[in-house]
Amino acid sequence: MGAVGAYYERAGCVRVGESEIVAPSAGQVRIEVEWCGVCGTDLHIFQGHMDGRFDGRRVIGHEMSGRVVELGVGVSDYAVGDPVVVRPLDACGACPACHAGHGHVCQQLNFIGIDSPGAFQTSWTVPAALLHRLPTNIAMDRAALVEPLAVACHDVRLGQVAAGEKVVVIGGGPIGLLNALVARHAGAEVLLSEVSAFRLEKARQLGLATVNPKEEDLEERVDAWTAGAGADVVFEVSGSAAGAEAMTRIAKVRGRIVIVAIFAQAPPVDLFQFFWRELQLCGVRVYEREDYECAIRLIAELAEPLDSLITSRRPLRALPEVFAELTSGAEEVKVMIDIRGE
Amino acid sequence: MGAVGAYYERAGCVRVGESEIVAPSAGQVRIEVEWCGVCGTDLHIFQGHMDGRFDGRRVIGHEMSGRVVELGVGVSDYAVGDPVVVRPLDACGACPACHAGHGHVCQQLNFIGIDSPGAFQTSWTVPAALLHRLPTNIAMDRAALVEPLAVACHDVRLGQVAAGEKVVVIGGGPIGLLNALVARHAGAEVLLSEVSAFRLEKARQLGLATVNPKEEDLEERVDAWTAGAGADVVFEVSGSAAGAEAMTRIAKVRGRIVIVAIFAQAPPVDLFQFFWRELQLCGVRVYEREDYECAIRLIAELAEPLDSLITSRRPLRALPEVFAELTSGAEEVKVMIDIRGE
Repeated sequence: MGAVGAYYERAGCVRVGESEIVAPSAGQVRIEVEWCGVCGTDLHIFQGHMDGRFDGRRVIGHEMSGRVVELGVGVSDYAVGDPVVVRPLDACGACPACHAGHGHVCQQLNFIGIDSPGAFQTSWTVPAALLHRLPTNIAMDRAALVEPLAVACHDVRLGQVAAGEKVVVIGGGPIGLLNALVARHAGAEVLLSEVSAFRLEKARQLGLATVNPKEEDLEERVDAWTAGAGADVVFEVSGSAAGAEAMTRIAKVRGRIVIVAIFAQAPPVDLFQFFWRELQLCGVRVYEREDYECAIRLIAELAEPLDSLITSRRPLRALPEVFAELTSGAEEVKVMIDIRGE
Repeated sequence: MGAVGAYYERAGCVRVGESEIVAPSAGQVRIEVEWCGVCGTDLHIFQGHMDGRFDGRRVIGHEMSGRVVELGVGVSDYAVGDPVVVRPLDACGACPACHAGHGHVCQQLNFIGIDSPGAFQTSWTVPAALLHRLPTNIAMDRAALVEPLAVACHDVRLGQVAAGEKVVVIGGGPIGLLNALVARHAGAEVLLSEVSAFRLEKARQLGLATVNPKEEDLEERVDAWTAGAGADVVFEVSGSAAGAEAMTRIAKVRGRIVIVAIFAQAPPVDLFQFFWRELQLCGVRVYEREDYECAIRLIAELAEPLDSLITSRRPLRALPEVFAELTSGAEEVKVMIDIRGE
């Protein structure tokens, strides 16, 4: 049987078809992908929002787990059969950001699965330097959560969340929920703000304190919770103007605001509050090597809540209808695509 | 001769008249004020923008130098005749910000000279704990720049400016110029962005590189200057929507943006750029003890440029007309008010 992959063709159109088996060059490995999650970014691609990065049809997908099946020349750190995940960031190594050691936000970054062929295919060839080995006893569907979990590890690390701190997460989609879980695992008390009844229920099932800011005043709730101090850390994961407005009201003096969301438009931001309370803000994007290592550890430690985030398991051939369903607002957290046996 | 002070009465009205000589209580000192600079905040008060903090006429002013003339019970660290400056922040000591060690941004801060009587008077009684002793050989008019200079020391410290870094200061008023001078003294290369011909000329006299963003593309200039990397640190001191728009375009990956200005309105802020380049932002307000100590050291080390910022010296009785002139856009950097011999 040949290889099969899911190609983004144009806005609203993903097609599953034959894909190329690429023999690994020196320093590369070929992987049989087992599972690959559907990311919000994939949905943006499907909707045509990122067509500037596509000059033709391309296999997408980047939240994967799989096994090494072929080694290129010079690859000695891995063996055939090894369970792995891929950190899909291929940095140029030459730009100012790379020179400064921030290759994950390389100014000419090749994000594999967006800018070059991704993991929604049975056979995937990538640089061995981007692999992380998995424990042999790991559940491979849960392991495909390493990538989004690494995002949350990065966010919580750069947000400098410490045990005992009070953290508000604005937005309860997959990344918001993962941020909440990782912050709680770091010892923080977490309050999740979300407007969707489905997501609120999911958060409560995970044992998270929740607030619906359309039904309850968020600032009053945080004030009461923190005895008037405000939150130590606020994660803005909603990408909404309402979230950008709330974030400066609920952070404490010298509190940290972490911009996780991708804001399509520049919202008004109350810079006066930054002055008045010496607020801090940092943007966070993707992950670094240590965040993947953190995520792989947490896959075991957070097994139960992570499994509960996988709301559907679907075969690769169903991916076009999965995109259509998600675009129509299907109540899902993480849809996991089974790539095995295609 | 009795004491004399300048009272803010109501919007557009400052009057010079008799003021009270207050005997120092335990822990207080009485000071004969020698010089007091006019701050942008004083101008805001004069224009009625801060009437919510005034429940009657009150002496304003807080950028002062003077000498101790009377000691309250228990004050042993100072002697009559000592040259001093006052750090005019009287914290409550009880709020969450104070408990966290951030008394300078106390949630019930008494800013002396705004919320309680200030330094535009010949006799001023304040807590001894807020005093900083000056070197005996210091020029007392220049010493009245310690307060705004401490703002810049605070800004540069919280902006973590390091030697060799490239720093853009947006806005060339007194605080912008002081930020530029302190950043340069810290070893940074500084580019000052300003639209006023008068301020640009002043900056050039100080040996600063300048750019007028109305005549030259600021982003292109910074790109060329930094070989495409962007600025290490950006100080937003203009309080303008244009500044808030520019700041995210000119900072490098992981660059730091420091909000120094007081934004009367919440401008659009490109939060996407914070995500995309992992930008950092922090608000900064007033100063802490160590910033005053830094400023007192720099008064000697930056004597010449600091003196050149004093564009007028006027007697206390001229203060009403000084406010009127500044409100009309008089070309001044720092107007220094002579309080001696009133």
